[in-house]
Amino acid sequence: MNLLIVHAHNEPQSFVASMKDLTVKHFEQAGWQVQVSDLHAMGFNPVASAADFGSRQKPDYLTYALEQRHAYQNQALAPDIAAEVEKVKWADLIIFSFPVYWYSMPAILKGWVDRVFISGYCYGGTRIYDRGGLKGKRAMLATSLGGQPHMFGPGAVHGELETLLKPIQQGMLGYVGLTVLPPFVAYHVPYLKAPEREQIMQAYQQHLHQLDSLTPLTMPSLNDYDATMHPLQPAS
Amino acid sequence: MNLLIVHAHNEPQSFVASMKDLTVKHFEQAGWQVQVSDLHAMGFNPVASAADFGSRQKPDYLTYALEQRHAYQNQALAPDIAAEVEKVKWADLIIFSFPVYWYSMPAILKGWVDRVFISGYCYGGTRIYDRGGLKGKRAMLATSLGGQPHMFGPGAVHGELETLLKPIQQGMLGYVGLTVLPPFVAYHVPYLKAPEREQIMQAYQQHLHQLDSLTPLTMPSLNDYDATMHPLQPAS
Repeated sequence: MNLLIVHAHNEPQSFVASMKDLTVKHFEQAGWQVQVSDLHAMGFNPVASAADFGSRQKPDYLTYALEQRHAYQNQALAPDIAAEVEKVKWADLIIFSFPVYWYSMPAILKGWVDRVFISGYCYGGTRIYDRGGLKGKRAMLATSLGGQPHMFGPGAVHGELETLLKPIQQGMLGYVGLTVLPPFVAYHVPYLKAPEREQIMQAYQQHLHQLDSLTPLTMPSLNDYDATMHPLQPAS
Repeated sequence: MNLLIVHAHNEPQSFVASMKDLTVKHFEQAGWQVQVSDLHAMGFNPVASAADFGSRQKPDYLTYALEQRHAYQNQALAPDIAAEVEKVKWADLIIFSFPVYWYSMPAILKGWVDRVFISGYCYGGTRIYDRGGLKGKRAMLATSLGGQPHMFGPGAVHGELETLLKPIQQGMLGYVGLTVLPPFVAYHVPYLKAPEREQIMQAYQQHLHQLDSLTPLTMPSLNDYDATMHPLQPAS
């Protein structure tokens, strides 16, 4: 089995980097092949632009998704994108390793999604959710937060973490057909002492050990919608 | 009054760019001062890194928010960040002009938030939401979507748009104390013909005309939480 870790942290000694190292070790010991895309170390360019395409279907007007499809079909994707797409194809499991910035990914990782989850392969038309291009592969977030657990949930100041992560877990990962495993979230990380960090690391190890028994997140099924995406059963 | 438009689109002839042009015209005609940060045109760097700080509190370990505070206090922010922070200080209203990519912002705009909404000025500790650093200023999203209106809402395939935009509207804008006006969302834009586009543009003009009468989005109030962010009234 093959694991791709997409890692985005601007401090190589960070807690999230330690989680990433533990992830590599855990899966290698289990006999997996592991690749890491360390976006800061690679100097990954997160800006989706016309420069991403070696040839264009419409050279005078950029519709990014349309040119993704065209470039994918014509082997004209920028080399840095093409290399990441190959890793996605190779992977059975993709783990996204990052600190939550503004209830979302750091821009360098958001740009990986913008540029690498290409239309034509990962999705397109009604090839989304349970008909998405990455169906059969799994994904998981391994992330850190500055906040504490009591700041998230019903009635908590920031609301439910599941809601805040929905654009990522459903809008990006579920959308392309990935089976999304429950995230591992390390809370309050910048403020923790070594023993607390060690406890979290042990909990993460446990999370990885039981990965196959975790219930994936529920995603929309296109079976519940017609060809124009109207619900077959109206909302009650 | 002063308007800052933060514009992120990789096609200068795009519909979103036309909306941005209309925004400029509307506010200039109303006597406002207008500045536009056109991120693609500026070649804005969206990657939050150690290079953002001319001096460091902890040179051997990067905690990004901590160094933001330190660099802000010591006038050591990278010049491109400092210039944007000055625009934010100057602005009474900030309009974010972008196409929705993956139920979020394009990375180039996410990186503007990561780098420009600095700890120490925009927020810090419990200076968030109605005690945020940008309290008194207003913000609004002016955005486009590939999807159609029936794909969003209760029971719709993608769920409620308000939920998908929550990390932006609450987690980024409300968090720093901005009063968030209802967004303007242009649906199905890549597939529209000229007359339909013209209709949307008229609806956007109307939205801008009635801006002062729109009810801002509801955000958490720190009055409902104690100093450690526990709710004063437990969730029912």
